[in-house]
Amino acid sequence: MLAPGCELDPDQEVVRTRPEDYFLRPPSHAACTACGTVMTIHIVERMASVIPASNSSMRSDRNTYVGKRFVHVKNAYLDSMDEDILYHLDLGTKTHNLPAMFGDVKFVCVGGSPNRMKAFALFMHKELGLEEAEEDIKDICAGTDRYCMYKTGPVLTISHGMGIPSISIMLHELIKLLHHARCCDVTIIRIGTSGGIGIAPGTVVITDIAVDSFFKPRFEQVILDNIVTRSTELDKELSEELFNCSKEIPNFPTLIGHTMCTYDFYEGQGRLDGALCSFSRGKKLDYLKRAYKAGVRNIEMESTVFAAMCGLCGLKAAVVCVTPLNRLDCDQINLPHDVLVEYQQQPQLLISNFIRWRLGLCD
Amino acid sequence: MLAPGCELDPDQEVVRTRPEDYFLRPPSHAACTACGTVMTIHIVERMASVIPASNSSMRSDRNTYVGKRFVHVKNAYLDSMDEDILYHLDLGTKTHNLPAMFGDVKFVCVGGSPNRMKAFALFMHKELGLEEAEEDIKDICAGTDRYCMYKTGPVLTISHGMGIPSISIMLHELIKLLHHARCCDVTIIRIGTSGGIGIAPGTVVITDIAVDSFFKPRFEQVILDNIVTRSTELDKELSEELFNCSKEIPNFPTLIGHTMCTYDFYEGQGRLDGALCSFSRGKKLDYLKRAYKAGVRNIEMESTVFAAMCGLCGLKAAVVCVTPLNRLDCDQINLPHDVLVEYQQQPQLLISNFIRWRLGLCD
Repeated sequence: MLAPGCELDPDQEVVRTRPEDYFLRPPSHAACTACGTVMTIHIVERMASVIPASNSSMRSDRNTYVGKRFVHVKNAYLDSMDEDILYHLDLGTKTHNLPAMFGDVKFVCVGGSPNRMKAFALFMHKELGLEEAEEDIKDICAGTDRYCMYKTGPVLTISHGMGIPSISIMLHELIKLLHHARCCDVTIIRIGTSGGIGIAPGTVVITDIAVDSFFKPRFEQVILDNIVTRSTELDKELSEELFNCSKEIPNFPTLIGHTMCTYDFYEGQGRLDGALCSFSRGKKLDYLKRAYKAGVRNIEMESTVFAAMCGLCGLKAAVVCVTPLNRLDCDQINLPHDVLVEYQQQPQLLISNFIRWRLGLCD
Repeated sequence: MLAPGCELDPDQEVVRTRPEDYFLRPPSHAACTACGTVMTIHIVERMASVIPASNSSMRSDRNTYVGKRFVHVKNAYLDSMDEDILYHLDLGTKTHNLPAMFGDVKFVCVGGSPNRMKAFALFMHKELGLEEAEEDIKDICAGTDRYCMYKTGPVLTISHGMGIPSISIMLHELIKLLHHARCCDVTIIRIGTSGGIGIAPGTVVITDIAVDSFFKPRFEQVILDNIVTRSTELDKELSEELFNCSKEIPNFPTLIGHTMCTYDFYEGQGRLDGALCSFSRGKKLDYLKRAYKAGVRNIEMESTVFAAMCGLCGLKAAVVCVTPLNRLDCDQINLPHDVLVEYQQQPQLLISNFIRWRLGLCD
């Protein structure tokens, strides 16, 4: 078990488990990135017989243990807690049977807007041909107004609000939920809207790597009063699978590129239409053109922390955003309502096709 | 008029206006904080006869012009826009008559949770004894699910979601809304919940200054790829008025102190119950005790950007948060539901009393 007080290299995976159903592998070693201390790591492994085989292919990668990729938490304190209250989801380990409710989840789809995520859940329900009546698809987090959550077969859909702090709270509690529910081989995809850079409005961008306002592939996490830099790489194989899926849809312009993630929609994204604007149009265009040159094709507000946290916790993750405007041309969306709605549905359509393909439901 | 491309010293106020109803004062000068260039500043002033006298006292301070304190935008581009779409509020200058809808607003109350802000609006409606039927108080932003907004007499109530980016988007659009609506002498108060440090659960904290994770009274705003540091001081007179109001309510423990604002609820606030935790209980307690020593009495996630933006735009601002738990004792709220609800209502009660006092409605 990882000792409290040390942050390990993200490439050194440590699986935290419950005592039953698991066995210990021979100990290995890793250096603490904060203080350099070499530590003994006990990797605990789930017995293969406990969970039935998944539909997904069993690839060998850094997150795989005997063909199963569990959702990790990296917190040695959780086991000692009598109860874990997932406050912002209105769920808990004592009040809910999380393995029974969520144990079969294989896909998690997240997005900012509660309404759009509800629409996606209803769309997935139809696309998967599930027997349950549509009106029975209820918000699992109805007891709180922070996030909404729907489950349709193996697909869990959750809203995350706007910005890094808001999605970060949801991800902490979602990852604990998936861990408590003993989920394995989970794929997580953020679907959303974003500002395009130098690409035609309506293009869908699949993120290869999330970068910050300085075009760096990093997420700076403040931990107490220290800053820890985390990797923001997303799953290459997953993004390629999604890109291949997009080719099957007629008139569906899609590309793979870098996504810039900012803490602010106005000054931080070079908009000239905020309450505060201290830069010129020329400076704005210079910045956006430098971003383009660095490989950035769209800007949103959640991808760096999403990539960092999912990467650390063994979730294969992708970000798929449509771009209703080209920020080299304008700052405000001024599209006819039906065109905007159609654009917003593009990522949903792609992810639905991808999930159906993964589940072997495509023709 | 302030030329695009320069950020002025926050103490140098520049009022942006429409051509009608205004006159020019003799030009003054200010140095650009980015490049040092001394610029000629034309301060434009509204003619005293246009808006009726406010109920609030006319104090002389840096935001006052002939007894009127207007809401400033600091963006020279806004005037040249044919239409300003306040996208996340689902309002706009062409689609809505903003002066008619909002011109009489004197108090703006903001908080994270949509449900709690709706409850506050209904409570204010009752407390102000307004004639309009309760069922007619509708969400003005019903066309979007990003924020909700209610108006009850001179009180505008808005939700802002969780975290700095989410409240920042709302504030940009709210400030433009108040500017377009030609509001003056506006007081804005954030009401919310927070984690207490070294104080009894249930205590209400009125913030004197917001500090960051390093206990510094600053907000670091990324503008393009530059970092600009902004002041996070709140209105001293307003916080004292609120504190005096609290003394009138029986059994209402209240104090004035520093509020720490973080980008993260778990690792950034030293919680031991997140999906990721790389520090020990000792390190957590050491950090929180150092925060206490630096004057911090509670932790939340919006106050620095709220103080910075309101200060720059001429809004007298306060932050009033209740503390349902003492973070030196625990990380999770584990109170009976009715106690938690009672705590959450404390800031609402104080602000309602304050507004009634300001409007001369108290006995």
